[in-house]
Amino acid sequence: MNYPLEQLLPSNYLLAAAEAENAPIVLAGVLLSLIVIYLASKLGGELSRKLDFPPVLGELVGGVVVGASALNLLVFPESGASASDSFLMTVLQLFDDISPEAVTSIFESQSEAISILAELGVIVLLFEIGLESDLRELQKVGYQAAVVAVVGVVAPFAAGTAGLMFLFNVPTIPAVFAGAALTATSIGITSKVLSELGHLKSAEGQIIVGAAVIDDVLGIIVLAVVASLAKTGEVDIFNVVYLIVSATVFLVGSILLGKFFNKAFHLSAEFFQTRGNIVIPAFILALLMSFLATAIHLEAILGAFAAGLVLDETDTRNELDEQVIPIADILVPIFFVSVGARVDLSVLNPVVPENRQGLVLAVFLIVVAIIGKIITGWAVFGKPGINRLAIGVGMIPRGEVGLVFAGIGAASGALDKPLQAAIIIMVILTTFLAPPFLRFSFGDAPKEVVEEADAAS
Amino acid sequence: MNYPLEQLLPSNYLLAAAEAENAPIVLAGVLLSLIVIYLASKLGGELSRKLDFPPVLGELVGGVVVGASALNLLVFPESGASASDSFLMTVLQLFDDISPEAVTSIFESQSEAISILAELGVIVLLFEIGLESDLRELQKVGYQAAVVAVVGVVAPFAAGTAGLMFLFNVPTIPAVFAGAALTATSIGITSKVLSELGHLKSAEGQIIVGAAVIDDVLGIIVLAVVASLAKTGEVDIFNVVYLIVSATVFLVGSILLGKFFNKAFHLSAEFFQTRGNIVIPAFILALLMSFLATAIHLEAILGAFAAGLVLDETDTRNELDEQVIPIADILVPIFFVSVGARVDLSVLNPVVPENRQGLVLAVFLIVVAIIGKIITGWAVFGKPGINRLAIGVGMIPRGEVGLVFAGIGAASGALDKPLQAAIIIMVILTTFLAPPFLRFSFGDAPKEVVEEADAAS
Repeated sequence: MNYPLEQLLPSNYLLAAAEAENAPIVLAGVLLSLIVIYLASKLGGELSRKLDFPPVLGELVGGVVVGASALNLLVFPESGASASDSFLMTVLQLFDDISPEAVTSIFESQSEAISILAELGVIVLLFEIGLESDLRELQKVGYQAAVVAVVGVVAPFAAGTAGLMFLFNVPTIPAVFAGAALTATSIGITSKVLSELGHLKSAEGQIIVGAAVIDDVLGIIVLAVVASLAKTGEVDIFNVVYLIVSATVFLVGSILLGKFFNKAFHLSAEFFQTRGNIVIPAFILALLMSFLATAIHLEAILGAFAAGLVLDETDTRNELDEQVIPIADILVPIFFVSVGARVDLSVLNPVVPENRQGLVLAVFLIVVAIIGKIITGWAVFGKPGINRLAIGVGMIPRGEVGLVFAGIGAASGALDKPLQAAIIIMVILTTFLAPPFLRFSFGDAPKEVVEEADAAS
Repeated sequence: MNYPLEQLLPSNYLLAAAEAENAPIVLAGVLLSLIVIYLASKLGGELSRKLDFPPVLGELVGGVVVGASALNLLVFPESGASASDSFLMTVLQLFDDISPEAVTSIFESQSEAISILAELGVIVLLFEIGLESDLRELQKVGYQAAVVAVVGVVAPFAAGTAGLMFLFNVPTIPAVFAGAALTATSIGITSKVLSELGHLKSAEGQIIVGAAVIDDVLGIIVLAVVASLAKTGEVDIFNVVYLIVSATVFLVGSILLGKFFNKAFHLSAEFFQTRGNIVIPAFILALLMSFLATAIHLEAILGAFAAGLVLDETDTRNELDEQVIPIADILVPIFFVSVGARVDLSVLNPVVPENRQGLVLAVFLIVVAIIGKIITGWAVFGKPGINRLAIGVGMIPRGEVGLVFAGIGAASGALDKPLQAAIIIMVILTTFLAPPFLRFSFGDAPKEVVEEADAAS
């Protein structure tokens, strides 16, 4: 009678039950947080679309509305919030008698789960961006796009970092982080606006999209370098060289080994015949490369992007693209809304005198962000008559990657609240301004509308 | 100069950075765990399919292989494992210098994240099962299926619980939990095997599938009741009545309010035009109903199942079905592999004398599981000449819902290790045995093969 009497003693069981007692409340907290996140992202995204702005902007603003700046529905302990600041925790306490110590531990567990989901969201986002980018397309647009990209990374980075350090006395690491956040053009937003304007296939459009892709890659390398600097807390020239070399070797290495990865993916997708035969091997690849990137102290998203980049265009790949969409639809909003929710816009409230310096910073970042990209148009060579202004303006919108900078900077503690808010404002404003600016620089009427008018007459 | 000098002081920044320092290592741990989970589920699932068994069985066995029973790649603190038991933590320590205190906290954070992902996985699974079940189909098969279902729930539950309590002296709550785990037939496994045998549309097939659906619903109500009993730790007759009534009211209420939910879903899916316009409203509904179910102390999965059940068959719904598949493909394996990984099969090792009692329990559960379902065939009335044995045998395979019982029972502490292992063995064996038993009871040759042979001659 060893087994049932000793091992099933009620006291033993009650002890284990007490430990696991909070698990359903943590789950309830995660469910509520996800409901808030999805409502914010969908309502924000749809409103943004109705106003003719990219949906991602609305998801971000939706996050700001439900987050620390306004409704306090979604707040995070790392940003200094406690359980009593969270309106969701108040709701949970309506349904359950939770002891005060349990409240803090539930709040932290639930916030940590949402943070991990947001990180999986940005991994899927960069994997998807990698899938959308085409290595061969990049080679066609070639030198022109590369020059535009390099100028568009170096100019705002140098001007932003130097300006913050010398004009505003910001310490080196936050200044470098904010400068780096100015670099990456949003492929998603730019290509969407160009296609809406009917200029995606024009020479200007091709250069912009090519440059935006290269730009994103450069931006991710810069992020890997900067984030690692933030982790070690000091600017060690040896470390900088190590990171630039390792990030470049990692990315170039992945591309060179791409044929092998690609073959392994296609073989396994063909070999496997149970559900998930395409999406699981792809995720194993993306997660493995994300893990390898973090293992050598780079960012996980660099690995996810590389994994997407190396998968060749085939029937299986196209099927994969389709299957990744709903997964991204579910996970990516958690990232965007969390980034918005972590921002405390009240630090930029101009009525409070102490905030004015932070506001000045935001204005400075926006000016550098715009001018630093507009000049890239004049870096194009050997193309007389090209619309240089349009190319420069097309590079203005920052987006996903800029937000990734703000998110990782905030999570690592490298960016304080005003600077983080200034970066978010910069991302929001450059994205708001790009569509009307682009319309103006290409001349008013979108091409497709003109063609439709011709066809009708 | 208020802002940059005071707020960006390096010491301040380093403090915040130290707190967030572990976040990338937790993420790396989650990534590694997910890689292990996906490899285990895919290799297990494919092997199972090659051997002519349902893939879900292989995912479960894959979990057992990577879990506490064998490789120790995926272990959980709730099951008594410490960080030093986890092979993944050893791998993480190769890449990073982690302090001994940090190791424990990283291990717990990472395990908690995987547990939450597994819970989201089972929510998506039950939502998908709900989507696959059709209320109108159920009404057609009608009374026959209902009688088979009720007998198939009551017989194994009563025989299992009473047997455990009176023959083996198991305390009431674990006995009720194990008895409840014997109730639910797997819709997925049963319908797949029937369609492979070409008997899905036969009278027997229709009754089996209808009964399996009703059975699942009854099983989920039983689970809600039993899990809540496990939480409060005592059998309070008032509580039992409250739970049966609230679970029934919740499910019936959701179905009655279904038209309203359904309309809200279709309107928003039509109104929204940005990405995720179908899947996000559906997830909001599923998460909201899951949250409501937990808020009234039922199980989250009851809400998810109800949400799936009420969405009517339309074009939008069909599109939703397609989009839920890849999401389920990514999240559901985390659940199955975790369930397998939590099991410690060594408690059933027959070489250790103390284990023999546990093994006897497993054998008892399996016998009750099989006989308790086979007799259901003789409950069919007014259908002379029907293959009663086939109906009974068709109800044998337990699957998803049985595993949900084992998983929730283990997480809540209601099931100790030997009983939990016995349930898992019961689920595995009933599922292994059902396909050959069904083939035998229908006669050897599958119908489709016969038809093909006819066509060829």
